[in-house]
Amino acid sequence: MPKISKKAGAMPPSPIRKLVPFAEKAKKEGRKIYHLNIGQPDIESPQVMLDAIKNSNIRVIEYSHSAGNESYRRKLAAYYQRFSMPVNMEDIIITTGGSEAIAIAMMTCFNPGDEIIIPEPFYANYNGFSCAADVIVKPIRSSIESGFALPPVSEFEKLITPKTRGIMICNPGNPTGYLYTREELEALKAIALKHDLYLLSDEVYREFCYDGKQYVSVMHLEGADNNVILLDSISKRYSACGARIGALISKNKEVMAAALRFAQARLSPPTFGQVGAEAALDTPQSYFDTVLKEYTMRRDFVIEALNKMDGVFCPKPSGAFYCIARLPIDNADTFCQWLLESFNHDGQTVMLAPATGFYSTPGAGLDEVRIAYVLNKNDLQSAMNCLEAALKVYPGRKVDSKTKAAIS
Amino acid sequence: MPKISKKAGAMPPSPIRKLVPFAEKAKKEGRKIYHLNIGQPDIESPQVMLDAIKNSNIRVIEYSHSAGNESYRRKLAAYYQRFSMPVNMEDIIITTGGSEAIAIAMMTCFNPGDEIIIPEPFYANYNGFSCAADVIVKPIRSSIESGFALPPVSEFEKLITPKTRGIMICNPGNPTGYLYTREELEALKAIALKHDLYLLSDEVYREFCYDGKQYVSVMHLEGADNNVILLDSISKRYSACGARIGALISKNKEVMAAALRFAQARLSPPTFGQVGAEAALDTPQSYFDTVLKEYTMRRDFVIEALNKMDGVFCPKPSGAFYCIARLPIDNADTFCQWLLESFNHDGQTVMLAPATGFYSTPGAGLDEVRIAYVLNKNDLQSAMNCLEAALKVYPGRKVDSKTKAAIS
Repeated sequence: MPKISKKAGAMPPSPIRKLVPFAEKAKKEGRKIYHLNIGQPDIESPQVMLDAIKNSNIRVIEYSHSAGNESYRRKLAAYYQRFSMPVNMEDIIITTGGSEAIAIAMMTCFNPGDEIIIPEPFYANYNGFSCAADVIVKPIRSSIESGFALPPVSEFEKLITPKTRGIMICNPGNPTGYLYTREELEALKAIALKHDLYLLSDEVYREFCYDGKQYVSVMHLEGADNNVILLDSISKRYSACGARIGALISKNKEVMAAALRFAQARLSPPTFGQVGAEAALDTPQSYFDTVLKEYTMRRDFVIEALNKMDGVFCPKPSGAFYCIARLPIDNADTFCQWLLESFNHDGQTVMLAPATGFYSTPGAGLDEVRIAYVLNKNDLQSAMNCLEAALKVYPGRKVDSKTKAAIS
Repeated sequence: MPKISKKAGAMPPSPIRKLVPFAEKAKKEGRKIYHLNIGQPDIESPQVMLDAIKNSNIRVIEYSHSAGNESYRRKLAAYYQRFSMPVNMEDIIITTGGSEAIAIAMMTCFNPGDEIIIPEPFYANYNGFSCAADVIVKPIRSSIESGFALPPVSEFEKLITPKTRGIMICNPGNPTGYLYTREELEALKAIALKHDLYLLSDEVYREFCYDGKQYVSVMHLEGADNNVILLDSISKRYSACGARIGALISKNKEVMAAALRFAQARLSPPTFGQVGAEAALDTPQSYFDTVLKEYTMRRDFVIEALNKMDGVFCPKPSGAFYCIARLPIDNADTFCQWLLESFNHDGQTVMLAPATGFYSTPGAGLDEVRIAYVLNKNDLQSAMNCLEAALKVYPGRKVDSKTKAAIS
């Protein structure tokens, strides 16, 4: 029997999806599960988007241009310009989700064995794409105590070797919800220029910035055109994760020409997704206002509920729709599996993503989970009730010194 | 300025798409172009498929399962079973087009530097996917004189080294239209088993077999379950290239588990494509009967027209909707570009794919082109008129000895 490749053996399972079989079993047993494990919002996609697909009147579902439909790219450039990002049509390749933008960027920029520095915790699938591209992730630890702010430049400098070829960030951050400041982005630009590194930025949560805070893109940085690559997706913006439409964006002509060759090999991004995405650019501002209000409310509710629980700590995020909470538990993987396998709170349980999968440092994040606040408030309330009840009875609960003192 | 990767530099442009800028220019100048360069059929997608997308009533465009919707996989397994292929739901991962099935199979099965043997001419993008996976293609030449039949087993044996890990075929063949016999497939199986190789088979043209000839799949081969990987797509079957729905299929559990991890990293295949693809499984047989009749007529017309032209030779294919024709020209790349840049036949010209891109042996296929007979008969007639007229005036025309004798 032929062997699978070394890469295939090393490819990590998705920490967000690996517990799915346990969830399926729990559902079959009749338990209701609150899914806080995956960034799949319950918000409806914009009507204008759904209508465009319904009324597209396509008779032959044809290939599109490998870089995506020209009409869509033209309109998308105007969208970025509204954010003061100097993006033109020719700077854009439409991809099959943000995922493909990451995969193509990795193959375009990095040789096998090259190193990229990524602040951790980071979006778990960066591990998978790095593995697929034989790129080595060098994590740089951001701490829950500082709300996952960017580590100081000196910490980056310590990690730079002759093999370092890039830095990758997610802003606003998944899984941390952290929103980088202009100062932090300028610091990253300085490192990238000094060491001739690519600066890859995943900005799919652009529309989810709270408390009136300013969003700063890598495309706002001046004098770094050849270093900067923006990775984007419509999945969260329009609650359209299944459309599989993203974009790879750069002013670096050589990068774009090479990326297009990878795009040509896979022919084209999905037709219906593009039709919907183009129409979605006409989504009225009121849609986003409503969504932002809803998520602000959800965030406030979840963060407050978490921090009220015994032994739980969760910094308040300024962006995206995730938070990382530290729980009084021995092992997040065991705990999240136990929630699905063994826990039952009035016929309900909650599914969380163990944070271990968002770190590449072994052993990091053992007592942390990622929570996606993508459900309505009632469901979030029930989910928090489940979590609170679970933490009281979980066999691997760590008793903190204060509680220990009270008990003894 | 940071450098692009070596792989990105080596990544070949699509030979089918690299002439697109010249075609765009010709169109802007007002010339009509008959596109025989790309396998983009003009046939309408099945009504049942289009209706399903129109009426899907999706409110939130959600992620699907990374392996594809369970309802679709279940129904798709039944489709294969109608071809007597022993495929079950758990043997299937739905991919974003056949392209992604190839990309995932390459990463799953092969290490960087591993060799795969592919009979050439082969589908040009196999070069791109091999390059992306750092796999070395070892071409084995099939000849136009034999209609591109499988080269003898002894020729395969000559190419096998300790690095050889797989054989890849396309059946029915793109770009050759060749349909492998059971004997040829049994021969491939014997080599695969003897040398412990993966046998990858791209069978996206299953529905396009002519003259009542029998289609034999690698899934029909007995005792090779761990070696065989089927790569499939709905693009041609339902004239739905833009749906971007394919499948990776194998009975090898280890391969499927690893492939799923790659699939998880990219989250899910497109939602609307899956909705359409599932509905398309109910396409009435009359649709395929009509399509087959149409393509048989087109094939017969094109092959006859080509072979009537001075100095042109084109074997009659038994499957797919392509043929490779040998033309009396110096250089297919130059000729195909000249057709777009400099040729004008009553305001019209024809776009062909130079066959050089379908060979990996340098210099092979220099006087060959691939023709996709994907237009209606009137357009095919006009296209053949263009080609015949072009061959008379093309500056790089090679005069064969017979003509030369007549001239002198």
